[in-house]
Amino acid sequence: MTIDKLTAEEAAEVLKQGALGRLGCIAEGEPYVVPVHYFYDGENIYIHSLPGKKITALRANGRACLQVDDIRDSYHWRSVIAYGNYEEIGDERLHELALAELFRHVPHLTPVESKMTKGSVETIVFRLRVDQLTGVGETW
Amino acid sequence: MTIDKLTAEEAAEVLKQGALGRLGCIAEGEPYVVPVHYFYDGENIYIHSLPGKKITALRANGRACLQVDDIRDSYHWRSVIAYGNYEEIGDERLHELALAELFRHVPHLTPVESKMTKGSVETIVFRLRVDQLTGVGETW
Repeated sequence: MTIDKLTAEEAAEVLKQGALGRLGCIAEGEPYVVPVHYFYDGENIYIHSLPGKKITALRANGRACLQVDDIRDSYHWRSVIAYGNYEEIGDERLHELALAELFRHVPHLTPVESKMTKGSVETIVFRLRVDQLTGVGETW
Repeated sequence: MTIDKLTAEEAAEVLKQGALGRLGCIAEGEPYVVPVHYFYDGENIYIHSLPGKKITALRANGRACLQVDDIRDSYHWRSVIAYGNYEEIGDERLHELALAELFRHVPHLTPVESKMTKGSVETIVFRLRVDQLTGVGETW
């Protein structure tokens, strides 16, 4: 029985195949973790959000991580963590493209997300340019 | 379509029923998130671990959170976040009891966990006494 570090390729594969992750950031000096839908284009992780605690936190301290796991059973699982700095997408065209891509990548968005993609002015899209990506798992 | 705050009772229920959560802490100034098995006795969250990055981080900065979600489908989900301070279980009897309880609560421990419960001296058990617990969801 061993738990091995994933290779860079394996870690990227987990991140690319996933759609649901847990975003970690620091909010008023405390760790804060929330589930988010995302997509990863091989360079950036795109996430959308309504204004709220995580956006307030990320604007104050932009260092963030996304943890993604693929747990098939107790003996076959992988978990990766990707780091990047918060970058809010202000450009209207990129904002639209990212939302469309999220919608394609995550076919079953939650209702709030579906509503968000209909162009609410409140929808925030941000990305993390991945500068560190590691993972562990029992490979299969 | 609305996303509501959970009541204290609902949030506690999600935490009690879950077995897999994502632990958030701060490691060298950065957020850090890892999947963990746990059990919650209504007051404390118990978690076990081998020595490593999260233990090093938690010994340096004991503020931690555990995020747990119960996602049945896009329209029926809950997510909670519990906060507490890291407390390592040094007492041998309590250490043993907590491991036994974890083993009962989480029938399908990963191999490393099963090995850990067999009494490796390296197994660390810690708890977070929950001092804050909130949640959101579409209740059902």
